[in-house]
Amino acid sequence: MKVGIYGYGNLGRGVEKAVAKNPDMELVGVFTRRDPETVKTVSGAAVFAAERLQEFVGRIDALILCGGSATDLPEMTPAMARLFNVVDSFDTHARVPEHFSCVDEAAFTTAHTALISCGWDPGLFSLARLYMNAALPDGRDYTFWGRGVSQGHSDAIRRIPGVLDARQYTVPVESALEAVRAGRQPELTTRDKHLRECYVVAEEGADLARIEKEIKEMPNYFADYDTTVTFISEEEMKRDHSALPHGGQVIRSGKTDEGNAHVMEFSLKLDSNPEFTGSVLVACARAVVRMYSRGLYGCKTLFDVAPADLSPMEPSELRAHLL
Amino acid sequence: MKVGIYGYGNLGRGVEKAVAKNPDMELVGVFTRRDPETVKTVSGAAVFAAERLQEFVGRIDALILCGGSATDLPEMTPAMARLFNVVDSFDTHARVPEHFSCVDEAAFTTAHTALISCGWDPGLFSLARLYMNAALPDGRDYTFWGRGVSQGHSDAIRRIPGVLDARQYTVPVESALEAVRAGRQPELTTRDKHLRECYVVAEEGADLARIEKEIKEMPNYFADYDTTVTFISEEEMKRDHSALPHGGQVIRSGKTDEGNAHVMEFSLKLDSNPEFTGSVLVACARAVVRMYSRGLYGCKTLFDVAPADLSPMEPSELRAHLL
Repeated sequence: MKVGIYGYGNLGRGVEKAVAKNPDMELVGVFTRRDPETVKTVSGAAVFAAERLQEFVGRIDALILCGGSATDLPEMTPAMARLFNVVDSFDTHARVPEHFSCVDEAAFTTAHTALISCGWDPGLFSLARLYMNAALPDGRDYTFWGRGVSQGHSDAIRRIPGVLDARQYTVPVESALEAVRAGRQPELTTRDKHLRECYVVAEEGADLARIEKEIKEMPNYFADYDTTVTFISEEEMKRDHSALPHGGQVIRSGKTDEGNAHVMEFSLKLDSNPEFTGSVLVACARAVVRMYSRGLYGCKTLFDVAPADLSPMEPSELRAHLL
Repeated sequence: MKVGIYGYGNLGRGVEKAVAKNPDMELVGVFTRRDPETVKTVSGAAVFAAERLQEFVGRIDALILCGGSATDLPEMTPAMARLFNVVDSFDTHARVPEHFSCVDEAAFTTAHTALISCGWDPGLFSLARLYMNAALPDGRDYTFWGRGVSQGHSDAIRRIPGVLDARQYTVPVESALEAVRAGRQPELTTRDKHLRECYVVAEEGADLARIEKEIKEMPNYFADYDTTVTFISEEEMKRDHSALPHGGQVIRSGKTDEGNAHVMEFSLKLDSNPEFTGSVLVACARAVVRMYSRGLYGCKTLFDVAPADLSPMEPSELRAHLL
């Protein structure tokens, strides 16, 4: 299978590394909106200007879109779905229905297959929620995230005057996790579920108390959470906080009759969020190509993908070894 | 959807309870090889002799087969797949390929849909292994079972002369679990992974030392494990060991590059193995009926089922609420 990567940030590099781990995949090239001369790929893959994508129609089985969800993908995915089979990791949960219908229109009318919101949440976590709800209809879902870096929250801190750099970790509250795992089905507020740990490099002479207050009172981002702020040096930031770990848990707890309770849990502990997400996107590209070959056009999500289509193994091998 | 239950032991009762939790499902009846007069259902569902199944062709959308894997299902599933869409929980991993091809032949030639090996292992655990392998091709799988009752091992103990009753718990070794969860990818022998805890009611005057020795040295079942044997009274057995809890963990640990490791885990903690398995079978019956309506005949496994087909929710609802 021939794949292309459109967008070459952390996620694009993650996809590039994942292609190398999948022998049935071949990377045709990386496409960028920057000057291709300035982009150096990890594997030495060719880099092309995004404007040249049109030339690659017929030479790429699936194009993996590595733009951001806020502004890139709402434009990029429908546009590219008119030319290629595509995979994206659109992760703005609230806007999924709207994104789905734009992409569906583009892909369906041009007879392409598009798979959106692939990754781990949405993605593998969504699958866990669906399977768990189907297996245990009388129950309650919980999702915890972390311990991991939230890019959005880190960016929000960086916009405060006097802040040079920042890293925000979302941390699940251990006692809440334990109550859920014990099947107690607690009512949990936002504050009960997660803590926010902030590491901040401030400008010399900045008013640290004011920065800390601005962070802790920031609506939507921090005001509803117990938040800690730790000021560190640029060296400490670089040494201790340059990785992008993440993870979390989906837990469903429910009953099959009055006496019998069950707890199901899916959890991830990831050293690198973008590399893992990239690896999931590559498996999804495989499914897209297979669904396309069967004439299953239009926009899909992982809910529509038969699991076997994600695997490089033959169906009989899967039954013999993984069932 | 109209479903029937064939076989009315612990699993059949679990399916019956699960049908009541799924408002889109209706239980047409329970079919038994015993005298129907002697069978009383939990919900008051009608009981019919198995020989009358033929009369129900066209009145049951999916028949849920609740026989045992050793001798019942190898006969029952292909025979019933000639008359109905069927779901079973065939769990002899080594014989899946053979069972699959018998059922496929029966279902395909008569234009029915059959879904085999549904439950949690095989079933949800198999799905976890497939998704994890696809998401992280460079890695290693581990499956742990328990703490839970193994029916097969309990039966093996009961066959020892002098034993009146027995219950065997399979228990994962905590230190092995921790090493796997830490991403250390240990090499683990059978003995490293699980302990076997046996509770035995002996006949009065029986030679307890001889019974304990026979258990601990029993090949295949106990010889390769650290096994504990505790003799208890009939009252204690009834009071403390009448439930059928089970559970386990599927864990995959792998890398996306030299520096970045990831750990994925799916775990279940079940108060009642048959009730939870029954609940999964009911979701699978829904998928079978939908696949049949699309002309997808023959034998399938959960690897072939688009997850959305297991859920009573509409695709747009699923995207809005679970993605």
